[in-house]
Amino acid sequence: MGLPEDFNAYRSKMNEKIMASDSLIIKRIFNLDTNAYQEGSLDLRTKEMIGLTCSLVLRCDDCVKYHLGKCKEVGFTTEEVNEAMGVATLIGGTIVIPHLRRAFEYWESLQNV
Amino acid sequence: MGLPEDFNAYRSKMNEKIMASDSLIIKRIFNLDTNAYQEGSLDLRTKEMIGLTCSLVLRCDDCVKYHLGKCKEVGFTTEEVNEAMGVATLIGGTIVIPHLRRAFEYWESLQNV
Amino acid sequence: MGLPEDFNAYRSKMNEKIMASDSLIIKRIFNLDTNAYQEGSLDLRTKEMIGLTCSLVLRCDDCVKYHLGKCKEVGFTTEEVNEAMGVATLIGGTIVIPHLRRAFEYWESLQNV
Amino acid sequence: MGLPEDFNAYRSKMNEKIMASDSLIIKRIFNLDTNAYQEGSLDLRTKEMIGLTCSLVLRCDDCVKYHLGKCKEVGFTTEEVNEAMGVATLIGGTIVIPHLRRAFEYWESLQNV
Amino acid sequence: MGLPEDFNAYRSKMNEKIMASDSLIIKRIFNLDTNAYQEGSLDLRTKEMIGLTCSLVLRCDDCVKYHLGKCKEVGFTTEEVNEAMGVATLIGGTIVIPHLRRAFEYWESLQNV
Amino acid sequence: MGLPEDFNAYRSKMNEKIMASDSLIIKRIFNLDTNAYQEGSLDLRTKEMIGLTCSLVLRCDDCVKYHLGKCKEVGFTTEEVNEAMGVATLIGGTIVIPHLRRAFEYWESLQNV
Repeated sequence: MGLPEDFNAYRSKMNEKIMASDSLIIKRIFNLDTNAYQEGSLDLRTKEMIGLTCSLVLRCDDCVKYHLGKCKEVGFTTEEVNEAMGVATLIGGTIVIPHLRRAFEYWESLQNV
Repeated sequence: MGLPEDFNAYRSKMNEKIMASDSLIIKRIFNLDTNAYQEGSLDLRTKEMIGLTCSLVLRCDDCVKYHLGKCKEVGFTTEEVNEAMGVATLIGGTIVIPHLRRAFEYWESLQNV
Repeated sequence: MGLPEDFNAYRSKMNEKIMASDSLIIKRIFNLDTNAYQEGSLDLRTKEMIGLTCSLVLRCDDCVKYHLGKCKEVGFTTEEVNEAMGVATLIGGTIVIPHLRRAFEYWESLQNV
Repeated sequence: MGLPEDFNAYRSKMNEKIMASDSLIIKRIFNLDTNAYQEGSLDLRTKEMIGLTCSLVLRCDDCVKYHLGKCKEVGFTTEEVNEAMGVATLIGGTIVIPHLRRAFEYWESLQNV
Repeated sequence: MGLPEDFNAYRSKMNEKIMASDSLIIKRIFNLDTNAYQEGSLDLRTKEMIGLTCSLVLRCDDCVKYHLGKCKEVGFTTEEVNEAMGVATLIGGTIVIPHLRRAFEYWESLQNV
Repeated sequence: MGLPEDFNAYRSKMNEKIMASDSLIIKRIFNLDTNAYQEGSLDLRTKEMIGLTCSLVLRCDDCVKYHLGKCKEVGFTTEEVNEAMGVATLIGGTIVIPHLRRAFEYWESLQNV
């Protein structure tokens, strides 16, 4: 299943174009974004949980996909991810459910990468 | 036109996977979601109007599609649906208009099912 | 309890100032807003349910207060209003709950006007 | 690259259907929408900047595309558009970034029309 | 400083009224809300981080206050809370900053309880 | 009328506390926020229009107040500000109107500073 590969390829291609645009504000946001998810007072796992659940309540499919990929990398189990997404769906309401469907599909496809 | 069939098939497939995941919070939200739209102090028609317009102001295409399908089932006319969507667009602003376009397209395709 | 009186007084005072400003776009929005809640294909009661629940999922306290006042005028019972707000809280999530608290307080104070 | 043509064709087709539906509220919103972006106290360029950045912080891809097309018509440079989108991304947060990717792709495709 | 006491008193008073209203949907949401933050696949601390940051990106002051209180109970340090709120502000954008100000004020007042 | 003085005093006091907290992510966001509104490819006036209207569609009263203060500093007339807020209200919908009331009140009080 090609979901993660297609997502990552498009994301990388466009990020390169954005960075090549020499837009100072955008570059600094991207830079800060990279640093913010490094280990600090909070560990990597906690930060990815924050990234995943905030993305879900704000209903951004691409952000959810990105953080699901990172959640897999840092070793979260399906049970942990599902529980976090359950809390986020409760906070954000049933309007989140269509994004939850796509998140489940993406998480499943990540297992086959 | 295949819009409603495709939408319903994907929705059913993913809902089954979500329910099979044994995530307790999510299961309870789904359960509550089913019950909330049953006849109570408010009748079915009023509840579907609430579901449709709240989905539109929150700009969730899939939620709008789902409630348009239910609105057709409970017998709303095109005039009633359009007026409800007009009020929702006024409340939610012109940022809702792209979702209104897709809602009109979906409602039209529902007539041919 | 003075909640509804204070709310209505401030709302009326500022609406007059806004209308006196001769801002054409704003005037037309206000005008359209007044017309949209008149009886049309949908009756007054359905329109107020739409106004109340959309205001709640968008988490606008003042809009909720305004529509609670109208819901009382058109004769909705406490049971009906609570059920509508329950559906809206389900759609919008637990993030809506603080607004639900203030809505309950305001509805209570409306009974004493 | 066909992005702008496809976008404009779908947008025009559906706008015609919506206008043909005789929904009074919607018609008046569309009418007001057309007038609001005409020259007034503010010039066309300022209004398109408002349209573009508000669309981006509200994360509506279609609205962003529409205003990018208008921004090109009124003569904004790539540097100006990128800076405006940078400010909007700062206001709206990193959750805006996936929309920024699609905005960059669309702006690029607009140069080839 | 009385902030936490006033907040908790109003919250408790209104929650009791809401629960006394016998609105079935609302009761079930409240019930689910209580259960969702119990230890499960994820521990209490991770769940409170999710609650705090989702509340901040959704810009709900009361929800932020509630979860700040719980974050203190489960032993988060000021450094950890500030880092989590920093990530949330990055995700949600500078529009979150006014809520961050009130969060800092509330966290400070929690130290004096 | 004390609105602008109170607003500015609280804002300054809390910003100082936030900057004193040594939270690296937050500091960099604040820093970037200051730089983003400097003259660049776009002039100060255009940037303040962006700040004002984005704040209004995102319905952040404090952000609206801050940018109204800056709009006065860079010389916008009441007619220009009202037209910009009209466009923002159209984009964001009638749910913006309560914020528009407070914006009108604040702009009026700014004239007496």
